[in-house]
Amino acid sequence: MNTPSTPKPKAVVLLSGGLDSATVLAIARHHGFECSALSFRYGQRHSVELHAARRVAESQGVQDHRIVDIDLRLFGNSALTDTIDVPKNRPMDQIAGAIPVTYVPARNIIFLSFAIAMAEAMDCFDVFIGVNAIDYSGYPDCRPSFIKAFEDAVQLGTKTGVEGKPIHIHTPLIELTKADIIRQGTALGVDYALTHSCYDPDPEGHACGSCDSCLLRKKGFREAGVPDPTRYAAG
Amino acid sequence: MNTPSTPKPKAVVLLSGGLDSATVLAIARHHGFECSALSFRYGQRHSVELHAARRVAESQGVQDHRIVDIDLRLFGNSALTDTIDVPKNRPMDQIAGAIPVTYVPARNIIFLSFAIAMAEAMDCFDVFIGVNAIDYSGYPDCRPSFIKAFEDAVQLGTKTGVEGKPIHIHTPLIELTKADIIRQGTALGVDYALTHSCYDPDPEGHACGSCDSCLLRKKGFREAGVPDPTRYAAG
Repeated sequence: MNTPSTPKPKAVVLLSGGLDSATVLAIARHHGFECSALSFRYGQRHSVELHAARRVAESQGVQDHRIVDIDLRLFGNSALTDTIDVPKNRPMDQIAGAIPVTYVPARNIIFLSFAIAMAEAMDCFDVFIGVNAIDYSGYPDCRPSFIKAFEDAVQLGTKTGVEGKPIHIHTPLIELTKADIIRQGTALGVDYALTHSCYDPDPEGHACGSCDSCLLRKKGFREAGVPDPTRYAAG
Repeated sequence: MNTPSTPKPKAVVLLSGGLDSATVLAIARHHGFECSALSFRYGQRHSVELHAARRVAESQGVQDHRIVDIDLRLFGNSALTDTIDVPKNRPMDQIAGAIPVTYVPARNIIFLSFAIAMAEAMDCFDVFIGVNAIDYSGYPDCRPSFIKAFEDAVQLGTKTGVEGKPIHIHTPLIELTKADIIRQGTALGVDYALTHSCYDPDPEGHACGSCDSCLLRKKGFREAGVPDPTRYAAG
């Protein structure tokens, strides 16, 4: 997108340490952006995904990786931050259906808000997020209509938007299947062994293999015809 | 709004400890809401306003007051969170004009996101915020168009919105002058001596009397014909 002589435009990439955001980071870099990464310590029940985010950022040469502490446990009401059990071995049609208990109230709204704040403070007009409306159709904050409406609100509610330099929210994965995402990331050299998707890893960080996120990840590698480098818990 | 026999509907009220949000809390209570308050420790240069928020919540009988830690200093670029000087003794037309250095990138977007998360987690469909488009016309995130667009995004991006129970963002002060706000709050029994507006208080918490916020507050009391209970720094 850019010739070597022009300075690279900056982008803020939301990086969870999962397969999707690792791919988004690679796509943003491929499009010529100088990427800053933003991750959250948000009261997840495990910190494995933050370690993964650090490894992914490092492996892709990100110089500026910020980790924001926010405590969503204060609000609770999600299997990812609360004491609700993570569902296991659900059939695919159930995963793609109703909003799951792993939905964290307004999580992407909060994450995007921080990304916008970071972008605005550093004169950057591009934010990338790895939301996906295919595999996660149950999450309302992963749908194109939400992202578009949020982008509109941000344009009206920020200094940079009012001054005619709106922040664009890029969602390069939004219409892709997990297999498509894995194929694209593999072509861009993403090392998926560094990423973590499981909602319920064991104490050593091995994936459980049976939560919604593990099932979607396994299926994705299988359909992409790419070897799955994930370390699953024994048994 | 409610008869005594029905349980009161819940509301989340963003409470900064300033004059505006103290008035909003009184208005929400007057309309029959059982109010939970939400405040932020966001890297403000002073903590006087959080003390004020606690006093205001207590004085209005709020049982559930949550304070969320978020560090906007991570992003900087505002006189309220950074080392930029707070402007003093500016004429009113300048205050109402361009976006001031006290603008914190995406602050209301972040605050509203947390309020939405809190509301959604507690099955509450009403959020109150004391934004005002008259005195603070320089802040893009205080304008009706932004609030409406944000509300639309939230409806699309939350479980509760998708399920047909959208969260409404109430902005009862948005078209009022500071004098109107003070008159309304005084009629509802708000004790403005408990509130704090100054951007740059002295170490004892006295208001400076010359920052934009102090100037607007003084003018408001003057125009409302209500005695100003603010403790200003000597000199």
